[in-house]
Amino acid sequence: MELLEICKNAKEASYVVGKLGTDEKNRTLLAAADALTANARMIMEANAKDIENGRKNNMPEALIDRLLLNEARIEQIALGLRQVASLEDPIGEVLSMKRRPNGLMIGQKRVPLGVVGMIYEARPNVTVDAFGLCFKTGNAVILKGGSDAICSNIAIVSILQQTLERQGLARAAVSLIEATDRETAAAFMKMNEYVDVLIPRGGAGLIRAVVNQATIPVIETGTGNCHIYVDESADFDMARDIIVNAKTQRIGVCNACESLVIHEAIVDTFVPYVLKALRQKNVEFRGDAAAFAAAGAALEGVKEADESDWGAEYLDYIISAKTVGSVEEAIAHINRYNTGHSEAIITKDYANAEKFLNEVDAACVYVNASTRFSDGFEFGFGAEIGISTQKLHARGPMGLLALTSTKYIIYGNGQVRP
Amino acid sequence: MELLEICKNAKEASYVVGKLGTDEKNRTLLAAADALTANARMIMEANAKDIENGRKNNMPEALIDRLLLNEARIEQIALGLRQVASLEDPIGEVLSMKRRPNGLMIGQKRVPLGVVGMIYEARPNVTVDAFGLCFKTGNAVILKGGSDAICSNIAIVSILQQTLERQGLARAAVSLIEATDRETAAAFMKMNEYVDVLIPRGGAGLIRAVVNQATIPVIETGTGNCHIYVDESADFDMARDIIVNAKTQRIGVCNACESLVIHEAIVDTFVPYVLKALRQKNVEFRGDAAAFAAAGAALEGVKEADESDWGAEYLDYIISAKTVGSVEEAIAHINRYNTGHSEAIITKDYANAEKFLNEVDAACVYVNASTRFSDGFEFGFGAEIGISTQKLHARGPMGLLALTSTKYIIYGNGQVRP
Repeated sequence: MELLEICKNAKEASYVVGKLGTDEKNRTLLAAADALTANARMIMEANAKDIENGRKNNMPEALIDRLLLNEARIEQIALGLRQVASLEDPIGEVLSMKRRPNGLMIGQKRVPLGVVGMIYEARPNVTVDAFGLCFKTGNAVILKGGSDAICSNIAIVSILQQTLERQGLARAAVSLIEATDRETAAAFMKMNEYVDVLIPRGGAGLIRAVVNQATIPVIETGTGNCHIYVDESADFDMARDIIVNAKTQRIGVCNACESLVIHEAIVDTFVPYVLKALRQKNVEFRGDAAAFAAAGAALEGVKEADESDWGAEYLDYIISAKTVGSVEEAIAHINRYNTGHSEAIITKDYANAEKFLNEVDAACVYVNASTRFSDGFEFGFGAEIGISTQKLHARGPMGLLALTSTKYIIYGNGQVRP
Repeated sequence: MELLEICKNAKEASYVVGKLGTDEKNRTLLAAADALTANARMIMEANAKDIENGRKNNMPEALIDRLLLNEARIEQIALGLRQVASLEDPIGEVLSMKRRPNGLMIGQKRVPLGVVGMIYEARPNVTVDAFGLCFKTGNAVILKGGSDAICSNIAIVSILQQTLERQGLARAAVSLIEATDRETAAAFMKMNEYVDVLIPRGGAGLIRAVVNQATIPVIETGTGNCHIYVDESADFDMARDIIVNAKTQRIGVCNACESLVIHEAIVDTFVPYVLKALRQKNVEFRGDAAAFAAAGAALEGVKEADESDWGAEYLDYIISAKTVGSVEEAIAHINRYNTGHSEAIITKDYANAEKFLNEVDAACVYVNASTRFSDGFEFGFGAEIGISTQKLHARGPMGLLALTSTKYIIYGNGQVRP
């Protein structure tokens, strides 16, 4: 199908989906979950072609693994839809309704965004997640997945569309752009007339490309150069446990810690202390002059950091360390080099904790906890469509609310403006 | 000053302004109001040069009038700053704070956006308004005004910067891009590293240019192709009064009514009725076949509409009229041609009123009231930075809240992710 036709149909479908009641939406989500499980074999056959192509193109094993769908994973994906069905429906809530002096009643009502465009890379589970979250919030969704997962995505979307049809709903509530060339992607990003928001999910390159090319409003997600500042008063055990967790609990994720900031008064004692634990996990340590010296310059896995380290999102078993003279200097360093994702201070000092919370410019700012908690499920949203690192519309982990807008509804009885 | 330097300085200043207490901000706003009044003569001298240039360039009188500053207008502008000072400061409020099962306390705190970029046309009052609203919300602002008002803007911004300096604050909390060439404007729109949001204010051409060129997130404001649907059950007097108000109370504004949608059952009786009142205000009437016939085709000021009328934002003494067979058809016509601004239904029918409120896709949807109420002051916000016609971040009239973001603040006591 032509791109333009996909977009037009999605817009039409969005008016239908936007009007559905909660029960109707939940019934469809559960039917879709059943259909995915029932058609697991067909999905796996399509997925096998993607895997075969991936191997032909020498895709790294880690990516092959992310691409692979088996019965257990499909069951897990279907379970995700059931969970979304169980969440509260945010659509239709009137957030406030006040009477103006002229008698007008003005309220703000939560409504769907309309048409959501998702641009993402190889993971086929995003295909189902995005449909589930967008459908629950009354939006139509247009999916533009990566070429690596195209066969899997075609199979999954056809099952979702069949489900919609069986429920008497517009197939175009979910659609897939099957063309995987760059021109189609670029044209899609300029379909302002039909698409209300674009959400890119993937690596820094994908997100930058979307931000630079799109004329549709974009919610930037993703890249995280997250810091942990170890204050002079930090509890060493707590700092070590949080750092090891934030660095190594899962290595390739945006809320992993990439850089330590350490108060100069403790650098000589704390660095050897945390280094021992980090080296047990095979983490390479890149310190500035003071941290490098404190680490024992000659040790294996210890290097001197250079300027490029401060801005690096390693997504690897590497951590940098910067020494600072004060909490103010720590905040200035973090605000200069971070990506606005998640930042933590480890401290026993009340004033420093509050200063850090107030002045660090990021979506999520922690006192005495791991940055790994920046996640829609950990925050209690029951779902996550991504983590916004921009300041408009949604900031931090995004659940269902991020997929909604509002409109003012005004009840009058003949008022005109004087 | 170089564009890059302006942007960098604004970013630095935003950290300072973002930390200010409410009292400090209000003191500065009041001092700026005093300084504008005290320097009225200097502002008027600069303005006189803009007026002179405008006349040389054959600027229409209406635009000359919008550009003109006299003592009374400067006093009015200063009063605007005093009013902003009197508004509640939204910054620092924690919108919710909940304990998670693992003991983490997660709250969402209202914070400044950071650096706001305003791109606007000839009206020099926007220069002061934008500073006032951005400063009150802890943001630095970079102003890119039109070349027509450049002398006025330079004078005004220099007074604001002097005030900041006297208060011991960074001058760069407000700055003006003095270069008026298109290349500078285009480069400004891509300064993502330093500018958090762009707000264009002006005609449709300006807004389209910003949306198409900017890589910084944009809040679209402005254009309004607003409809009034006169339902079968409408009170004719109420409908007439609202239509005349929405069309003629102020002609060149985005919340003015541009198009009527009329139920076919009343087209023959209502059109002559409303036409009489509209013709008294010299409004030209462009009807589809049924409305044209009902109007009395041969009358002066009555024309037959063509397809291009349905999408037109006249900003003039012209109104179009479309005949429909049902409220559903009215909604479909409006959703097809509107710009997502403000739409009204005039009806006595409960079900039709609710259907219209639910299904019309616009920032503000009215029952039995004039679309002219779509305005930050009329909505009770005490200020307005523009009217958003997009669905992300802010929709409809934008007050101080639209100039804020949030961040998650998380209080832990050593939590790590299992």
